[in-house]
Amino acid sequence: MLRLSTPGNERFSQARQFNASFGGGEANVAVSLANFGLNVDYVTRLPKNDLAEACLMELRKYNVGTDKIIYGGDRLGIYFLETGAVARASKVIYDRANSAIAGIEPGMIDWDSVFEGARWFHWTGITPAISEGAALTCKEAIVAANRKGITVSTDLNFRKNLWKWGKTASEVMPDLVSGCDIIMGNEEDAGKVFGIHPSGADVTGGHVEASAYESVCRQMMERFARAKKVIVTLRGSINANYNTWSGVLFDSKILYKAPIYNITHIVDRVGGGDSFMGGLIYGLITYSGDDQRALNFAVAASCLKHTIIGDFNLVTVNEVEMLMGGDGSGRVSR
Amino acid sequence: MLRLSTPGNERFSQARQFNASFGGGEANVAVSLANFGLNVDYVTRLPKNDLAEACLMELRKYNVGTDKIIYGGDRLGIYFLETGAVARASKVIYDRANSAIAGIEPGMIDWDSVFEGARWFHWTGITPAISEGAALTCKEAIVAANRKGITVSTDLNFRKNLWKWGKTASEVMPDLVSGCDIIMGNEEDAGKVFGIHPSGADVTGGHVEASAYESVCRQMMERFARAKKVIVTLRGSINANYNTWSGVLFDSKILYKAPIYNITHIVDRVGGGDSFMGGLIYGLITYSGDDQRALNFAVAASCLKHTIIGDFNLVTVNEVEMLMGGDGSGRVSR
Amino acid sequence: MLRLSTPGNERFSQARQFNASFGGGEANVAVSLANFGLNVDYVTRLPKNDLAEACLMELRKYNVGTDKIIYGGDRLGIYFLETGAVARASKVIYDRANSAIAGIEPGMIDWDSVFEGARWFHWTGITPAISEGAALTCKEAIVAANRKGITVSTDLNFRKNLWKWGKTASEVMPDLVSGCDIIMGNEEDAGKVFGIHPSGADVTGGHVEASAYESVCRQMMERFARAKKVIVTLRGSINANYNTWSGVLFDSKILYKAPIYNITHIVDRVGGGDSFMGGLIYGLITYSGDDQRALNFAVAASCLKHTIIGDFNLVTVNEVEMLMGGDGSGRVSR
Amino acid sequence: MLRLSTPGNERFSQARQFNASFGGGEANVAVSLANFGLNVDYVTRLPKNDLAEACLMELRKYNVGTDKIIYGGDRLGIYFLETGAVARASKVIYDRANSAIAGIEPGMIDWDSVFEGARWFHWTGITPAISEGAALTCKEAIVAANRKGITVSTDLNFRKNLWKWGKTASEVMPDLVSGCDIIMGNEEDAGKVFGIHPSGADVTGGHVEASAYESVCRQMMERFARAKKVIVTLRGSINANYNTWSGVLFDSKILYKAPIYNITHIVDRVGGGDSFMGGLIYGLITYSGDDQRALNFAVAASCLKHTIIGDFNLVTVNEVEMLMGGDGSGRVSR
Amino acid sequence: MLRLSTPGNERFSQARQFNASFGGGEANVAVSLANFGLNVDYVTRLPKNDLAEACLMELRKYNVGTDKIIYGGDRLGIYFLETGAVARASKVIYDRANSAIAGIEPGMIDWDSVFEGARWFHWTGITPAISEGAALTCKEAIVAANRKGITVSTDLNFRKNLWKWGKTASEVMPDLVSGCDIIMGNEEDAGKVFGIHPSGADVTGGHVEASAYESVCRQMMERFARAKKVIVTLRGSINANYNTWSGVLFDSKILYKAPIYNITHIVDRVGGGDSFMGGLIYGLITYSGDDQRALNFAVAASCLKHTIIGDFNLVTVNEVEMLMGGDGSGRVSR
Amino acid sequence: MLRLSTPGNERFSQARQFNASFGGGEANVAVSLANFGLNVDYVTRLPKNDLAEACLMELRKYNVGTDKIIYGGDRLGIYFLETGAVARASKVIYDRANSAIAGIEPGMIDWDSVFEGARWFHWTGITPAISEGAALTCKEAIVAANRKGITVSTDLNFRKNLWKWGKTASEVMPDLVSGCDIIMGNEEDAGKVFGIHPSGADVTGGHVEASAYESVCRQMMERFARAKKVIVTLRGSINANYNTWSGVLFDSKILYKAPIYNITHIVDRVGGGDSFMGGLIYGLITYSGDDQRALNFAVAASCLKHTIIGDFNLVTVNEVEMLMGGDGSGRVSR
Repeated sequence: MLRLSTPGNERFSQARQFNASFGGGEANVAVSLANFGLNVDYVTRLPKNDLAEACLMELRKYNVGTDKIIYGGDRLGIYFLETGAVARASKVIYDRANSAIAGIEPGMIDWDSVFEGARWFHWTGITPAISEGAALTCKEAIVAANRKGITVSTDLNFRKNLWKWGKTASEVMPDLVSGCDIIMGNEEDAGKVFGIHPSGADVTGGHVEASAYESVCRQMMERFARAKKVIVTLRGSINANYNTWSGVLFDSKILYKAPIYNITHIVDRVGGGDSFMGGLIYGLITYSGDDQRALNFAVAASCLKHTIIGDFNLVTVNEVEMLMGGDGSGRVSR
Repeated sequence: MLRLSTPGNERFSQARQFNASFGGGEANVAVSLANFGLNVDYVTRLPKNDLAEACLMELRKYNVGTDKIIYGGDRLGIYFLETGAVARASKVIYDRANSAIAGIEPGMIDWDSVFEGARWFHWTGITPAISEGAALTCKEAIVAANRKGITVSTDLNFRKNLWKWGKTASEVMPDLVSGCDIIMGNEEDAGKVFGIHPSGADVTGGHVEASAYESVCRQMMERFARAKKVIVTLRGSINANYNTWSGVLFDSKILYKAPIYNITHIVDRVGGGDSFMGGLIYGLITYSGDDQRALNFAVAASCLKHTIIGDFNLVTVNEVEMLMGGDGSGRVSR
Repeated sequence: MLRLSTPGNERFSQARQFNASFGGGEANVAVSLANFGLNVDYVTRLPKNDLAEACLMELRKYNVGTDKIIYGGDRLGIYFLETGAVARASKVIYDRANSAIAGIEPGMIDWDSVFEGARWFHWTGITPAISEGAALTCKEAIVAANRKGITVSTDLNFRKNLWKWGKTASEVMPDLVSGCDIIMGNEEDAGKVFGIHPSGADVTGGHVEASAYESVCRQMMERFARAKKVIVTLRGSINANYNTWSGVLFDSKILYKAPIYNITHIVDRVGGGDSFMGGLIYGLITYSGDDQRALNFAVAASCLKHTIIGDFNLVTVNEVEMLMGGDGSGRVSR
Repeated sequence: MLRLSTPGNERFSQARQFNASFGGGEANVAVSLANFGLNVDYVTRLPKNDLAEACLMELRKYNVGTDKIIYGGDRLGIYFLETGAVARASKVIYDRANSAIAGIEPGMIDWDSVFEGARWFHWTGITPAISEGAALTCKEAIVAANRKGITVSTDLNFRKNLWKWGKTASEVMPDLVSGCDIIMGNEEDAGKVFGIHPSGADVTGGHVEASAYESVCRQMMERFARAKKVIVTLRGSINANYNTWSGVLFDSKILYKAPIYNITHIVDRVGGGDSFMGGLIYGLITYSGDDQRALNFAVAASCLKHTIIGDFNLVTVNEVEMLMGGDGSGRVSR
Repeated sequence: MLRLSTPGNERFSQARQFNASFGGGEANVAVSLANFGLNVDYVTRLPKNDLAEACLMELRKYNVGTDKIIYGGDRLGIYFLETGAVARASKVIYDRANSAIAGIEPGMIDWDSVFEGARWFHWTGITPAISEGAALTCKEAIVAANRKGITVSTDLNFRKNLWKWGKTASEVMPDLVSGCDIIMGNEEDAGKVFGIHPSGADVTGGHVEASAYESVCRQMMERFARAKKVIVTLRGSINANYNTWSGVLFDSKILYKAPIYNITHIVDRVGGGDSFMGGLIYGLITYSGDDQRALNFAVAASCLKHTIIGDFNLVTVNEVEMLMGGDGSGRVSR
Repeated sequence: MLRLSTPGNERFSQARQFNASFGGGEANVAVSLANFGLNVDYVTRLPKNDLAEACLMELRKYNVGTDKIIYGGDRLGIYFLETGAVARASKVIYDRANSAIAGIEPGMIDWDSVFEGARWFHWTGITPAISEGAALTCKEAIVAANRKGITVSTDLNFRKNLWKWGKTASEVMPDLVSGCDIIMGNEEDAGKVFGIHPSGADVTGGHVEASAYESVCRQMMERFARAKKVIVTLRGSINANYNTWSGVLFDSKILYKAPIYNITHIVDRVGGGDSFMGGLIYGLITYSGDDQRALNFAVAASCLKHTIIGDFNLVTVNEVEMLMGGDGSGRVSR
């Protein structure tokens, strides 16, 4: 997906230029994983034009496999971004309708071949929001992954402005999520999609109460039997420049809590959740069995994402581990 | 319509920024007319979002009336532009499908009210190319204008990549053009839409033979009985930086020929035809009865357009008349 | 007025480019009002050149009426801005002497015609500072407005570097302010122009004591009998990036206090007071009778101004009301 | 003087940024001379502010002596530049009225001390155009230079938009020019200031007839007895991007002619005449007695100026001599 | 190699920013080939730092294989580029000494493994110029390629400023070139390295006489017995913006001549020769046996390179074939 | 030294442009001193190329004497800078090996002549790190300065990545430092170079305990008998955007402590230590005998440096004294 953002903090009505980059939920996770050194393929449908070709090039640049992408349709999805400040919120204008991925239909991708040799499949709640075909293809992929015994993860990623094809997230998501082993979301996702609510959280007010989320996680696991782990990202929005950031992971027994980071001078928070998921998958695979460390890696990695312009989280394992080790001092490395 | 162009001569795959401006056939003509001091309203359908609002603001900036615009639909049409050089052609990627204007339907605009007090209605062949609704609405407007005795002009503006809604330009355009008083096109338009061809022209090779176009004009007037004047723009493409530029006007008796300009260092040729039409309408209204002068104004105005970045022709009547008077020396004015 | 600001935090000696926009006290208020949906005309004197024309276009873009502007004189006023950071103050270099507006003389504007149908006239203390003619014209306008029963508001806006034409602010302003219904200023204005001081305020130190300003307001109302409301903006300057922001409104009986906002990452504070005035006029007109709400709207609107680059406050009523409602979390709107 | 130019070929109404540099007739000549290795001081009057300080720094950067500059006044002169293309002329908006140099008066500069050890004094026709004080100070300097036996040169540089202080160039210039040893101008200068016209030249049309200027030179020398050499720069304006460029030097006996250069892709022609004068003074001093070589150096140096952005001619003696030697091929030097 | 070029036509002393891209003889050829759809690996030695990593990413973006690159040494080579105009030449400042590739030594690369499955090996005369180790490694690679029967091509690419390690090009190159099947150069290369001169050519003067080069080709083939084809690129330097461009190919019997292209508005000529070689290798492989077509493809491809900013030739086979087919009109493709 | 920094907070892999400026320890101190009004010469060795020439020009711009610079060698040292944010550290890639200054040898500079009339010589620990020749030349200069009775100051400036020529800082520095009168460092310098450690400091954690450094200072003075004052800069790294900043000065009897500044929105911290040294030398010279004031000036000056982009501290004495006086409110100066 093409991301077009106004320079600095300009409003849409002020912009004479847009900074162009590429992003989108699953692509962001793929770049994180490739960047941390894992083998990863991005599977999507793209049109045959120079913009999509530029998108492909960018993925290749970051070492994401692009051989399984299929081609067709007329346009690349776009989102426009205006970056807020202090009490002024950032604004996203989606222009994704009728994109190539929205035109996908079951049967277009040979999932058995795609999943050959794979061990993990990740999807997000943005894909089924785009079109019925995308939702059905999502289902098709989850079924195929389950059949092959591949771990399936999802980021609920509820975006109310995207669900316009006829069904609501509440109607579509439960069936898809029921095929997942790892479920990630924030308290808004759980509430708006499944009607599951935490108690005592006041997100707008900037307060973050990790322990209050155990009930959400527990309810999620009760509802989705296949789930092994439920993860909640915890964002405390002090203002558009200053957030707190953390997360919890629940494995049906223990609620692991990560440190809370003060992100006092955010560079770019878009893609924060995706970078959390990228860090989490890396952590779960690499620190196999050590869920606390996997969670801490995810939170530290995504904390660093907030300092990188663009959707992609371009930090190294080394940088993440340095922050996990407690050094967030930002002293010059020379 | 939002125009997103790569900086300088960058290819799409090199661009990290797009320059953003607004344009589109009819809007470009409207800006030309407002800029020359005429009262003009731009009538279209726009979505209710910040990008469309920015587009509105830009039109207002150049004094184009925006009160008759209607609102609805989901997106603003976009086109991406990569500016070529020498033997490398410029490329346009249209992303206009499903734009607000594509979703227009007859009955949405009250043409009688729109045309209250108006004396001229201009449309281009791009609008009926977008969707059946847009084609029907075009027809509706032409009929209303004819009924009110308003002069109707058109720029044939054939774009083969836009005609995708089911019918071809050859099927749709004749009926629309039959309601026009003034018809403008280039030799490609006439050939591809109506099968009318000039003899002996070699456009790709850069040669321009004004007199060869009389037969095209004559055939057009025979076919479209309402037409009072047929105008052909004459572009000689030496290369992407260097074009010759001229035009002829045929009033069924005389073929008026304009001087040929050497545009040796083109800044931006997109919108060149629209600026010709803007100059022509201004000339026909202002120099009423002096078709030679009107044509010369149109050619000089659009020659100057090639020195302005963006779709809009931001030159003054004074600047055009100075060029018409023979001063194309480009000496510093101080 | 042309605003030329160095990019980012560059010093004047580092700048190779200036960002160009337009601004100035009254223009900023006009843009705020037009932007909030009110009908507004900006009345000034501009030279006939391309820079002034560009300024006009920008006002038109934001829907400010420009038909009542008169033309004459040789130059457009300029101010140069270097944006500070932390303990380094921003610097403004005024280059307004001999601008078109400085050359204005009583009689040039037909105020009776300008005020036809108007209900509000706003002027600022910057105008009489520029030249004797400007001061006299200000007086002329106030008298005309009083005669027509139009509400007159002023922002004292004391700038010591501008008062160079022979008289001091203390000599000129009292007569002008005596014709005003609504008087706005900060504690420095009141002190330096009228010798009226609050007690216990320590502005440089960053502390803001709203209640301490009641005495200032009361003294102002005693001095200026026509005044119905006196408003004081309260800025606590922690440093160049971080200010607190609030205001009080006194209606001779009650001192209304607004919430205090922490503006922790200022984007641009120039025009902050003007955006307060724009919000206040909008609030007083729209929430007629509810002075608390009008004040709160003014403070919230101008709080948001600090996140917008340029002099103009490009926020919507909706955005202001969201902040008034307590949501300053800056969460992404998508 | 501060030069503010729109980026690329943007019109004033399109510009959101201005490129900032410094320039002005005499400063441009000074930079040329310093750049070619001569000792040079720039004498002017500047205000005490950060913009003037930045101007000083820039002169120092290029090795121009700034110790003899005096301080006072309120503003630095400004000129705005919009760069044309093809048939669209570049536009200059002067904003120099009331600048520090306009406020200069005889007696402010101690010319005897300034000229201590100097061998050459150069002034241009722009200075006396600005104000009566500037014209009188010019006279004062010329008289002092004559008294000390210092060579005095002038560039007539007629700018009709600058002569606004009461007298015309024709009234003021003859007296000043009568103190000059070296007089440079173009055919327009001679005609508009002294009523001396060449025969058969058609400058707007782009034709350059070097030999036709002998009569102009001869008339100039007859009129100004002190003059040892009269130089005419010959610009053929094909269009805004493509000029021919040459010059002639007349020493009362021989008319030296330089080669004619085709400058097919002009980068920046402002300062072209100043760079000619800089090259000429360097050539006359360095190639003492070889006027042909001095003239050729001047023409080649100023030909190269057209490839440099900004007023200053930043080329080396070596580069000029390479072009004089016939290599204008522009092959990569590596 | 990192390329740092001044923006637009700025001189080094004016630049506050450098545009950063990557390039270098062999890398440029590799990108051309990958871009035309061939499988290609770039073999070099890079340091382990973020700049080299960014260089790798850029190669990957354009589909060049990077798995065979070895790591070591301290720095990435740099070249600084100032782009000239008209009579002012572009300047290159090399800063390649002590780069990672300069520190390469025979034995570091396992050529037998590198050449596994390869059919073509290309090197340029820049590599042996850098250091003795690089020259020896070049020799090592050529011997290995010869042993495996892989076609070896070279571009002589003589750069006198690079040969600083002790031996001259004339001492080193003959031995290396003797292992080559395809030899490309321009007339300067042949003359300066091997003392072989064409007759009657005047390169500086801009005249290009293709037929005069047959003697050079013939002498080359007599000297280097293994050579099957000798190719000479023909650049006519009218000035820095306008070159003619062509080439000849000699197969010991026939001298094939390509059309001569007028490149009237050069965007970037650096990498022109490399893009010729990339086109030639593609042509020789794809149009096997049709040397005329291969040559024409090479000339057309590299003609188009002059319209692309940066070292890499980012044009498609389709675009090259369109130009080969005679359409250099640069008409907008939409 | 050329500084090439990525724009904004871009990572090296994202940058398409580098901002170019000049810097380096000693140059930064020289610019500070010149800027505060002292006479200063920068002594170094530069290559003869356009980049070094541009560096010279920049120094001249800020009034630093450049006449004592010697020329030779092949390249100008470079450092690449990526500016971090929050928990992501800034990164510096040094590319200084084989620079002109690295090739310096004793005897190249005539120190007796350089020191003629001088009263102060400052060097930093970066110079001897670069090469053996640089270390020996440093020694040579210190000996010459001591001989002439010139005050010698040093900033220890330990950079482990620079010490690559064979000896360690611990081997080389003691002999050099023993010739110094004024020694400045941070706690890391003292520890890593001389094995002298403060107690109880936790720099990474952001806590700053001024009093804990007395023991470091005392140990330094015991070790280096010539030292009259030891200064420690105290940086508390909350994160990459927010540091506390202070310093202490020990004169063998009293430990002077400066106020601690909260630098909450750092613009550029590179050169912070150098600006401290520049402020200190200025203070010690100007406020002779008042060490507290000298220290306070140093801390305030370098606090302001953090708001200036680039290595150089472009603030005035007036601005520093305003901050020393307690006004760090950053209110607009107009």
